[in-house]
Amino acid sequence: MAGNTFGHLFKLTTFGESHGKAIGGIIDGCPAGLELDLNAVQNELDRRRPGQSAITTQRKEPDTVEFYSGLFEGKTTGTPIGFAIHNTNQKSKDYSHIKDSYRPSHADFVYDQKYGFRDYRGGGRSSARETASRVVAGAIAKQLLQGVQIQAFVSQVGNIKLETPYQKLDFSNIESNPVRCPDPTMAAKMEDYIKTIKKQGDTVGGVVTCVAKNIPVGLGEPVFDKLHADLGKAMLSINAVKGFEYGSGFAGVAMKGSEHNDGFNSDGSTTTNHSGGIQGGISNGMDIYFNVAFKPVATVLQGYETINKKGEKVKAQGKGRHDPCVVPRAVPIVEAMTALVLADHWLLARINKV
Amino acid sequence: MAGNTFGHLFKLTTFGESHGKAIGGIIDGCPAGLELDLNAVQNELDRRRPGQSAITTQRKEPDTVEFYSGLFEGKTTGTPIGFAIHNTNQKSKDYSHIKDSYRPSHADFVYDQKYGFRDYRGGGRSSARETASRVVAGAIAKQLLQGVQIQAFVSQVGNIKLETPYQKLDFSNIESNPVRCPDPTMAAKMEDYIKTIKKQGDTVGGVVTCVAKNIPVGLGEPVFDKLHADLGKAMLSINAVKGFEYGSGFAGVAMKGSEHNDGFNSDGSTTTNHSGGIQGGISNGMDIYFNVAFKPVATVLQGYETINKKGEKVKAQGKGRHDPCVVPRAVPIVEAMTALVLADHWLLARINKV
Amino acid sequence: MAGNTFGHLFKLTTFGESHGKAIGGIIDGCPAGLELDLNAVQNELDRRRPGQSAITTQRKEPDTVEFYSGLFEGKTTGTPIGFAIHNTNQKSKDYSHIKDSYRPSHADFVYDQKYGFRDYRGGGRSSARETASRVVAGAIAKQLLQGVQIQAFVSQVGNIKLETPYQKLDFSNIESNPVRCPDPTMAAKMEDYIKTIKKQGDTVGGVVTCVAKNIPVGLGEPVFDKLHADLGKAMLSINAVKGFEYGSGFAGVAMKGSEHNDGFNSDGSTTTNHSGGIQGGISNGMDIYFNVAFKPVATVLQGYETINKKGEKVKAQGKGRHDPCVVPRAVPIVEAMTALVLADHWLLARINKV
Amino acid sequence: MAGNTFGHLFKLTTFGESHGKAIGGIIDGCPAGLELDLNAVQNELDRRRPGQSAITTQRKEPDTVEFYSGLFEGKTTGTPIGFAIHNTNQKSKDYSHIKDSYRPSHADFVYDQKYGFRDYRGGGRSSARETASRVVAGAIAKQLLQGVQIQAFVSQVGNIKLETPYQKLDFSNIESNPVRCPDPTMAAKMEDYIKTIKKQGDTVGGVVTCVAKNIPVGLGEPVFDKLHADLGKAMLSINAVKGFEYGSGFAGVAMKGSEHNDGFNSDGSTTTNHSGGIQGGISNGMDIYFNVAFKPVATVLQGYETINKKGEKVKAQGKGRHDPCVVPRAVPIVEAMTALVLADHWLLARINKV
Repeated sequence: MAGNTFGHLFKLTTFGESHGKAIGGIIDGCPAGLELDLNAVQNELDRRRPGQSAITTQRKEPDTVEFYSGLFEGKTTGTPIGFAIHNTNQKSKDYSHIKDSYRPSHADFVYDQKYGFRDYRGGGRSSARETASRVVAGAIAKQLLQGVQIQAFVSQVGNIKLETPYQKLDFSNIESNPVRCPDPTMAAKMEDYIKTIKKQGDTVGGVVTCVAKNIPVGLGEPVFDKLHADLGKAMLSINAVKGFEYGSGFAGVAMKGSEHNDGFNSDGSTTTNHSGGIQGGISNGMDIYFNVAFKPVATVLQGYETINKKGEKVKAQGKGRHDPCVVPRAVPIVEAMTALVLADHWLLARINKV
Repeated sequence: MAGNTFGHLFKLTTFGESHGKAIGGIIDGCPAGLELDLNAVQNELDRRRPGQSAITTQRKEPDTVEFYSGLFEGKTTGTPIGFAIHNTNQKSKDYSHIKDSYRPSHADFVYDQKYGFRDYRGGGRSSARETASRVVAGAIAKQLLQGVQIQAFVSQVGNIKLETPYQKLDFSNIESNPVRCPDPTMAAKMEDYIKTIKKQGDTVGGVVTCVAKNIPVGLGEPVFDKLHADLGKAMLSINAVKGFEYGSGFAGVAMKGSEHNDGFNSDGSTTTNHSGGIQGGISNGMDIYFNVAFKPVATVLQGYETINKKGEKVKAQGKGRHDPCVVPRAVPIVEAMTALVLADHWLLARINKV
Repeated sequence: MAGNTFGHLFKLTTFGESHGKAIGGIIDGCPAGLELDLNAVQNELDRRRPGQSAITTQRKEPDTVEFYSGLFEGKTTGTPIGFAIHNTNQKSKDYSHIKDSYRPSHADFVYDQKYGFRDYRGGGRSSARETASRVVAGAIAKQLLQGVQIQAFVSQVGNIKLETPYQKLDFSNIESNPVRCPDPTMAAKMEDYIKTIKKQGDTVGGVVTCVAKNIPVGLGEPVFDKLHADLGKAMLSINAVKGFEYGSGFAGVAMKGSEHNDGFNSDGSTTTNHSGGIQGGISNGMDIYFNVAFKPVATVLQGYETINKKGEKVKAQGKGRHDPCVVPRAVPIVEAMTALVLADHWLLARINKV
Repeated sequence: MAGNTFGHLFKLTTFGESHGKAIGGIIDGCPAGLELDLNAVQNELDRRRPGQSAITTQRKEPDTVEFYSGLFEGKTTGTPIGFAIHNTNQKSKDYSHIKDSYRPSHADFVYDQKYGFRDYRGGGRSSARETASRVVAGAIAKQLLQGVQIQAFVSQVGNIKLETPYQKLDFSNIESNPVRCPDPTMAAKMEDYIKTIKKQGDTVGGVVTCVAKNIPVGLGEPVFDKLHADLGKAMLSINAVKGFEYGSGFAGVAMKGSEHNDGFNSDGSTTTNHSGGIQGGISNGMDIYFNVAFKPVATVLQGYETINKKGEKVKAQGKGRHDPCVVPRAVPIVEAMTALVLADHWLLARINKV
């Protein structure tokens, strides 16, 4: 109940603090007989890794995953897949600026209130480092979802917003720029803006858009576990996420029903896709697409005033090597969580009918 | 796993189809000793009931809840609370327009694909009638959350959008107009617009905003079951919802970290509240507020073209008494789901510390 | 978490107190497309019903089940099956002998301690009346398990014990005597003994043996959710059960490994079946068989001394119409719980392999 | 759902195969602020370790546990506790005798049927080596249960059965003999018998009895998750267990209700304890005691006939260093599983009342 497990049938449980010995997890429920490409798993981790470019944090974390169980002769055995990513960077650091005071808009204050104390080193469990375990599991889920294509990209940084419909974008550009935006011109603008913000010691938010194609019809349970409800929860569980919308989203509010309704073609596909590939909580075979809003990273490299444990006002100063904008590195995380949700519902759909 | 249960500790399981004998549910996990005001429960149901005003459906459904168990001498006993709402309106109707053909942007097509057939009467399980059971459970959860205030209201209908911050609104106006908008002038505009849309046989979407006050610090589990992730899932599980954002939401994307961060007062409260009362997935004691986007209702009273089970194009015509805009009646549903999430996490927080 | 749900995928949640308005439940996870014989469901309920013979309680409870949802045109729809059994016998009774004092070896004392108070009417939630809901669900699970045969019977009453191996018994005799023992001679002895005990105002325990045939190979999850672990939990959750053993059981302890091991035939079946059809927690296709020990019913129609809420010694007297021996009526309950476990694992086994 | 998680609130998820890189697990739900004695955890592991005496397997497995997370400054933080036990003994062995043929009464056959193939090295996931992870978690649960005393011991080996009531045994003798039987004379007989069996290349079963004292009143949920039902499932999930009985158990069947009922003392304690400390599924504060039956280990060091994957008869020969009798090493495992169940219900009991 403490909330470190995700999924109903394809279940990921994670552990680990930012500056502890290791982070990792257990995937329980991966069916037997899946030939796993472990390099592909490591590649996804590398996409999330710090230090990839000038606009991400310069921390060096190799983030090499080690598998302990659940694999034999290159295939999953149906038993739990245990894995760990050891922290190689565990030198004793100076945490005095966060040990006794609370960084604004971080989880420091609420952890102390909830648990009575906290592992303050690097944010402990509240650090986004935990998402590395999600990327490992998501990379396996991706391999389970044969035929399905999941692609996320950055569609907004600050006020710089990509307005082109995703259908007209060339996804092959995504990995060729550090922002992970499929439009090279916009990518350049975003990159420049992030560099400017970084120089100011400040941070900025952004939006990640995700598109999943070739989805089988019938994924999603009709009431509480609607496919988009589980996708929404998955995205909102990623650090710094403030919003989720799918299909027509918030803009769909202003449409009339007669415009918004997606007419049918003879084969059951639809002429438009305001539904975002999901109707009544169940996939209809059209593309699933959604947007995920990320707030600006709370760690700014500027002086600020805050309080300490006693409630006294103190002056503090952001330190360390942090991302000025989290969305480029969030792209593989969004994809991973999408894969986890889809794999889970793909298994759930096996028990719909007698 | 079929997704008809919501919650971890305060759990609601629902059953029932729109035109079956009854809908209802079981609440498992309500602590013993809660004095229940059953009139207050019925009042919440009445807020959701069809036929309340000229801008909602004119269907007559008394929606009287009957409790079967879990209560004794006016108090909860700690055992499951079983309840049912009998359908009094079960006359044999003409379902020929939906039996063999698929209404656009409804769940008809996906249900047939997923289950092999469907209860087509009134939408069966996919009908929003199911949310009445949520309102019953939510009304009980509200009573469990002593001191907490949960208030939702309509903040947008079509393009008519309330821009006033919620702090400056007079919530006592909400129930005094059929739209449930706290600003009387805007409420009148929204009402007029809904009437216009209704005359066109069309529908329109809207946004419900919800504010929860006096929240204890420490609700929410830090990783997958973040408080806002569970709120998001709860909202996205309501029929017709397309998006969820909390605190600064999608607009927060364009802010800088130095602006977005919420500074601390000496007592742990914050000077601003872009965080929306939740940091690191855990409540910090400030107001929780969020927006929920509803698409326009799919049933339009106009002719349309669609396909039948064989994939043949057919002409059809919307019938019946439907809401031209769902948001006024969605207000108590949003509140109910909010109460369910908060009650659940309020119980979960009891096991944080030794 | 309050423990009113059974099963992982084929899930039963029950509600209801002995003398409340109704008991009932929700079955969530029954696959769509199962043609349900509702008479067969009622027949199972009738097997459990009080007042069947001279050796069971003479209470009259028609126990008619009413289905609210999840069925359409005679088939399951894949949505939750809600049902209720209304209590027709709800006259105001004299509960003074149990309201303020604690019956020995009943749940009265622990309920008051756990919940602060209790619904004392007829034992409230702790009454075995709750098992009627299990019989309804089990009867549906039986129909889902096409080909599987589940048969329970009474194998011991007091010291009168059936020693014949189940393979040599004629199961067609089971329903032809009120004890539900397949050996007519032993059945007569057991019946006589129960009548003698009843005249004494006393009660006696017994053992129910259950055999399940034609089980597919591969049901059961290897570690915590071993098939026999879930069967054991299911049986131990039935009122008055004190023990569970399967296959060689407690007697197997004294065997040597070389005797106990079940040799293989060429087709994978085994020459003996000390394993009881389950190896490593997973069904191997041989008959599953197990014993369930029931204590003597706690309600004896004799005077006894006990304590009241204040801890004062009081004299009391058993009243009402109770079973002198619970095992004859427990037979359909054991079968129902067996069916629930097997149906659940039959669905779980669908997700073992890619 | 794949069944590698145990518990509702205090949850253990385990991973690992016998001859893989590591086994381990994640404990999720341990409250924050528990000062952990890690030596006590290792001590429990040492009690389970192979190679302790002449009557256990002579395999050398140091079984050193390494903690990765969830601890800070000597205390639990409320976040998941990840741990691993690395296999140091991973030399390449000769598995030809089990790779292609099925050992009788092992899980080899059913694993191949269920999953399509299996990790055959040392039994893979079906090896009792997995229980080491349970011992780690149980040792932490024991520390959480302040004041509660959990003690298991061997009460039967083959036909040699301890008939003394547990109240008259001196538990301080348990760890002073290799059998872990509190009666030194009986212990000596059991030890001799095991040695004799071992010389024969054979194995024998036994019974472990467990007693838990100082249990708070009110643990256990009243219907499906009765305290003894969860204990029973916990025990039946341990490798080689065939039966479970608590309190009067199978012997209680032959008692009359008037004898079996436990009379009350003024303080709510009972004069006898046939109930085994649990009434209606809920602890009543008296000692909890139960018996667990273990079959003889399936691996006998004798020649035997079996089948291979093709169903052909083959001759095989047991190899390796195995326990002739599993119960001495099962004692700490039974205690660990008891602690897990009690800790879980101790947390569940926090949410019974408003």
